Amino acid sequence: MNLIKGKKMIVLGLAAVTLLGATLVNNQNIASAGSKETLVPVHETLVKKYKIISPRIGYNTKTGYIQIDGQDAFKAKKSANGNSYVAPETIKAAVEKIKKSEKKLTFVLVHGAWADASFFDETAAELRQQGHTVYVPEYPGHGSLKDMKNATHEQMTNAVADYIKKKNLTNIVLLGHSFGGTIIAKVSEQIPERISRLVFFDAFVPLDGESLADQLPAPVQQSFAKLAEDSKDGTIMLPFPLFREAFANTASLEEAKAMYANISPEPAGPLVQKLNLKKFYSLQIPKSYLYLTEDNVLPQNEDFSWHPKQSGRLGFFRYIEGRGDHMTTVHKEPEEIAEKFVQAGRE
Amino acid sequence: MNLIKGKKMIVLGLAAVTLLGATLVNNQNIASAGSKETLVPVHETLVKKYKIISPRIGYNTKTGYIQIDGQDAFKAKKSANGNSYVAPETIKAAVEKIKKSEKKLTFVLVHGAWADASFFDETAAELRQQGHTVYVPEYPGHGSLKDMKNATHEQMTNAVADYIKKKNLTNIVLLGHSFGGTIIAKVSEQIPERISRLVFFDAFVPLDGESLADQLPAPVQQSFAKLAEDSKDGTIMLPFPLFREAFANTASLEEAKAMYANISPEPAGPLVQKLNLKKFYSLQIPKSYLYLTEDNVLPQNEDFSWHPKQSGRLGFFRYIEGRGDHMTTVHKEPEEIAEKFVQAGRE
Amino acid sequence: MNLIKGKKMIVLGLAAVTLLGATLVNNQNIASAGSKETLVPVHETLVKKYKIISPRIGYNTKTGYIQIDGQDAFKAKKSANGNSYVAPETIKAAVEKIKKSEKKLTFVLVHGAWADASFFDETAAELRQQGHTVYVPEYPGHGSLKDMKNATHEQMTNAVADYIKKKNLTNIVLLGHSFGGTIIAKVSEQIPERISRLVFFDAFVPLDGESLADQLPAPVQQSFAKLAEDSKDGTIMLPFPLFREAFANTASLEEAKAMYANISPEPAGPLVQKLNLKKFYSLQIPKSYLYLTEDNVLPQNEDFSWHPKQSGRLGFFRYIEGRGDHMTTVHKEPEEIAEKFVQAGRE
Repeated sequence: MNLIKGKKMIVLGLAAVTLLGATLVNNQNIASAGSKETLVPVHETLVKKYKIISPRIGYNTKTGYIQIDGQDAFKAKKSANGNSYVAPETIKAAVEKIKKSEKKLTFVLVHGAWADASFFDETAAELRQQGHTVYVPEYPGHGSLKDMKNATHEQMTNAVADYIKKKNLTNIVLLGHSFGGTIIAKVSEQIPERISRLVFFDAFVPLDGESLADQLPAPVQQSFAKLAEDSKDGTIMLPFPLFREAFANTASLEEAKAMYANISPEPAGPLVQKLNLKKFYSLQIPKSYLYLTEDNVLPQNEDFSWHPKQSGRLGFFRYIEGRGDHMTTVHKEPEEIAEKFVQAGRE
Repeated sequence: MNLIKGKKMIVLGLAAVTLLGATLVNNQNIASAGSKETLVPVHETLVKKYKIISPRIGYNTKTGYIQIDGQDAFKAKKSANGNSYVAPETIKAAVEKIKKSEKKLTFVLVHGAWADASFFDETAAELRQQGHTVYVPEYPGHGSLKDMKNATHEQMTNAVADYIKKKNLTNIVLLGHSFGGTIIAKVSEQIPERISRLVFFDAFVPLDGESLADQLPAPVQQSFAKLAEDSKDGTIMLPFPLFREAFANTASLEEAKAMYANISPEPAGPLVQKLNLKKFYSLQIPKSYLYLTEDNVLPQNEDFSWHPKQSGRLGFFRYIEGRGDHMTTVHKEPEEIAEKFVQAGRE
Repeated sequence: MNLIKGKKMIVLGLAAVTLLGATLVNNQNIASAGSKETLVPVHETLVKKYKIISPRIGYNTKTGYIQIDGQDAFKAKKSANGNSYVAPETIKAAVEKIKKSEKKLTFVLVHGAWADASFFDETAAELRQQGHTVYVPEYPGHGSLKDMKNATHEQMTNAVADYIKKKNLTNIVLLGHSFGGTIIAKVSEQIPERISRLVFFDAFVPLDGESLADQLPAPVQQSFAKLAEDSKDGTIMLPFPLFREAFANTASLEEAKAMYANISPEPAGPLVQKLNLKKFYSLQIPKSYLYLTEDNVLPQNEDFSWHPKQSGRLGFFRYIEGRGDHMTTVHKEPEEIAEKFVQAGRE
């Protein structure tokens, strides 16, 4: 009997305790009747130890069971002082069952410029440990395909879209980091039906007809143009000081150097290419923006900024925030970043 | 003898150590003379383990006692390397005495729209465990009074003010969440003498003559007007996708659904009612603004935003910040939220 | 043989595991062959336990050693499921060796107005424990020199510059807090060759020709002018309510009082003095801005704000962020603040 649907669920515990005038003492465990077993308070343990929020907890007046999400979970062993008590292993088993039933996600992670698929190594490993499925496609001009320095934005987009189609992936969380934001926007125009949610992770969201470069301050645009011109093969290599201060600001010098050693010059064409995004802006796919607050690649002022400037183009979106910079944190705090990916990506 | 008042207090410890050229070694404990007892360094233990900041720590040259807040606390057992050492249980007892003497607060917590008094269940329980007194009044149109869908803003305000007067509460911290900000502003006009501080928690602070709806982007205002019109009883029910993405963005789907199952349509009238706030803006009651940085119900840009846009109307106020969204975090992180309530509410 | 230089370093571990189709199980330790020793997975332990980011980890195909930063670090004991395993003490020793070789810094910390050198007591002690060298010069009008209430901005600047020259300090991280930002800017004009990096910590960065007061909202400027006028000795004493709410917003009342008891009136002259900062703005010294997000001394809106308004004057800078207020956190969270100082100050 699912009482939550009828909205007649009786909320257990804390509020009731107050009404009864009882004093709720922290960690007040009690002994089970006729045994040496120690019991723990149901509501407080669910809320504080297991982070099951109060609105998920109910009581089935017919069966006498405590419910989680409207499902009978376990029976309390004892009531005292207006509280219900149960053996700790009972409550633990119930929560583990709930956790196991949580829906797992299929991620497709798209890195940005001056990066390759290894950008997501640690975070992907963490997500897989949690039971999620993770794909990290490479695209022309980067990593194993880094020699394709003439790659166009279309080729990059097609590579990702083809990867998804070839593997016949559906119901995916398509996440793009930085320049990857422009890739997933264009990929979503090709295969909207395969995507359950787009996640922009400190990512560019150009307006229709704009390029990535249009999102940058004019002096940065000019430096990039100069670097591309000087390169002779139409690529831009980030000077180390720029990388170190703006892309890896929270890193140690050793970390910054190690990350920098992995990157190769970025094809300049796709960065200045004006993108037709009319279809993207008409799609009804749910969208999230994940912002790390120390990411200063875009100036954090009212004219530029990942959030709310780039994020704002999404219109209605789910906002998720963490601390970290553009390039370091994904490597250094994979557990935190994986958690944010899940928060941003889930239904 | 209270040396702090005369500003002649001698600051113990770390700075002195440097002057003496001694090297301060982390966790360098020493044995007590003639016993097997291990002593801990006074200053470092107070600062790092017990978070007693250095300016609170002194030394009474007359009695030889170490002081906290100008009161003799305990005598050091031994001095070495320019540091003072004492038994860990001595320092623990002194700090516990200090903590016990901390002033407890009386909170009156006023929930917002699409919520009821249960919104504060977990946080109220946490605050009570810490020794604070907490009241969570219900007001017309919500929770136990949810059938009063024609309730006006005045009726809501009066319900809260009457609750406070009937219980004869004084020296209260009056906290309002979201729409509750407009309620506490009006309540403060009725009973300013009972309020020690107003706390706006991700709350609306309309200018004099404005409504809550005036704080929202035009398309949201239009959607709400349409929803109210379609409802036939002049209420607005949040569509689940809007609730899930904007009010519960950090929640799991299960959490969002459980919270949504508890809410009922909100009377539209009070949301569009222009409020006379002249007296509120003339009151000298201390004010705090508590902002959770993932709360994206108001766009976080220069035109809207809880902070600094709504908060800025308070003029001179105490700013407290945490991480979390509009509806989830109060349920999920009651210990953190309770700590923020205390930081925002205390003298 | 340093393989990282040739960019032929083979990246170990997580990505490889995926290719092999192996399942990476969290904390999956294995027994060493022929012994009871338990081995831990190399890559996962380095990444998750020791926070050595993946790009720093390599494998020397010639010697068979696992490398960190291109240096042979240790040999794995066993390979299984595409992972390498080693004894926990081996990996611990290798990481400790790396940590020991990290470059230590020389800090010169310059406090702000209504403060003295003791402002940095706890943080300096923490930095020294970590092996850094820390100097905290006093300057006229404050602390031991607090009777010099007629001190000019030049005298303050000279005191700090002379301190550095007298001690013949070179390669320093010169950090200024609040008003200290204007001091370090002027000091940098005198001795640029001694400074490896300037760190502005919730600090003022006036434009050339501006004063500190020019950075403040007009009503605050007027209050300060009035307070200076009323003082008769040309000083400004912060009223306690202003200090408590704006400078110590996260503090308890006891903490705020203890900090307030230590401060003395601030000479007003240097706060309103227009500063010639042409040379400062022409210097090529690397710069960082450290911002604590609860610091509300400057309104956090688009017209004022430590970050991005004051920080933005630095042009190209390294951004580091933490949580805390203007005066409390440096005392209360010395471990966190010391970490931020290192992040902001290192090469």
